[in-house]
Amino acid sequence: MTQIDRPTVFINAAMSADGKISTVQGTQTRISGKKDRDRVDALKAGSDAIMVGIGTVLADNPSLTVKSKKRREKRKAEGLDENPVRIVVDSTARTPVEAELLVKGEGKRIIAVSQRAVLEDINRLGKKAEILICGTEEVDLKKLLYELWLRDIRRVMVEGGATLNWSLISQGLVDELYTYVGNMILGGKTAPTLVGGKGFGADDAVVKLELLDMEKLDEGVLLRWRVTAKGGEMENETA
Amino acid sequence: MTQIDRPTVFINAAMSADGKISTVQGTQTRISGKKDRDRVDALKAGSDAIMVGIGTVLADNPSLTVKSKKRREKRKAEGLDENPVRIVVDSTARTPVEAELLVKGEGKRIIAVSQRAVLEDINRLGKKAEILICGTEEVDLKKLLYELWLRDIRRVMVEGGATLNWSLISQGLVDELYTYVGNMILGGKTAPTLVGGKGFGADDAVVKLELLDMEKLDEGVLLRWRVTAKGGEMENETA
Repeated sequence: MTQIDRPTVFINAAMSADGKISTVQGTQTRISGKKDRDRVDALKAGSDAIMVGIGTVLADNPSLTVKSKKRREKRKAEGLDENPVRIVVDSTARTPVEAELLVKGEGKRIIAVSQRAVLEDINRLGKKAEILICGTEEVDLKKLLYELWLRDIRRVMVEGGATLNWSLISQGLVDELYTYVGNMILGGKTAPTLVGGKGFGADDAVVKLELLDMEKLDEGVLLRWRVTAKGGEMENETA
Repeated sequence: MTQIDRPTVFINAAMSADGKISTVQGTQTRISGKKDRDRVDALKAGSDAIMVGIGTVLADNPSLTVKSKKRREKRKAEGLDENPVRIVVDSTARTPVEAELLVKGEGKRIIAVSQRAVLEDINRLGKKAEILICGTEEVDLKKLLYELWLRDIRRVMVEGGATLNWSLISQGLVDELYTYVGNMILGGKTAPTLVGGKGFGADDAVVKLELLDMEKLDEGVLLRWRVTAKGGEMENETA
């Protein structure tokens, strides 16, 4: 049971067999195959919103649109926008106005900023997205999720990156994780991993999971985990 | 096919669902359960040698002994030492003379050093282990594996850590990986992962794997991968 009214939140990510979500340079590498990309598209089409951190926007510039025309049409037929609400967690409003997720495809956008964001940037982005000011220094994720709940968003898919994943997980705000483990080694002491941030220390209660499902998909493995014990509030550090 | 005469090399490691082999402080955390620890013990008892990097010795001080009395007795009955040969990759001969793997249990020990190691340390450790000087600055792993081959070692189990795993993988010296994925999130941008080191860059050929087997074990998943395309020589950086 969640203590606040918030949507169901799940993280979806592809990682190499050694836990990396990109190379040491932060460049995206195709980790999964065709079947997995189709699975991700279906998950996306079935979500009310897709959330990413500003780091992911700046590194990968994803559009976060539903790729399948059939799925977009199905959403339309159900009275929905073609794409789920696209949300960026972006404390200081650094999202470029020409970012793919702001210009490509129909559907609402929300940029969650903190009070550190300057008015000029807020006004600039406000033409393309709803701006939610949540939190003083960093984005207050609990408050953000509550605001999403008030907007009838019940199911949020998180597409990374490592810092946002950490912020959500460490604050006990994630219900499930889908991790695709790809058939490759990327290596690198400093390469981004599935969950970054400060990390749990030796004396902290780590987040425990329950394996819900495992299946071979393309050349790798899809694992589905449910969060059973939540880490509680470790810190508020976000993107 | 290997280009040099060398033993079969496989890495065995337990990692969290987010790819970490320890916490951000480098402290060991119990990632797997009883069945997995028994599986690891059986793998160890079936190997000719167990190899670790000096980082792992200094952080965890493992004994690397076979835990099961029955397995030790079986080895004895076959005319073997109770424990496989224990090998430390340790360029500058920093292994403490009181390290568990040097004092606990019967069996041979090999410490592989480079020419940077000073005579005093070599002499000190030479009372407890065979010292192999391989390489000038860092341990030349190919040469080391060839030396092991000459000593009738045909099957080497690598128990980490991240730096040694990278050195072996990036030089195309690993045949298989067993990765146990545990039901927890450890997080941490700087937490040690399964494969560290320099990492493959965007323009490098990454190491590709083939999934040989997957099974639910304890509360996590055991994945067995075969290395299909090897990364070639990226660098020689070792422990």
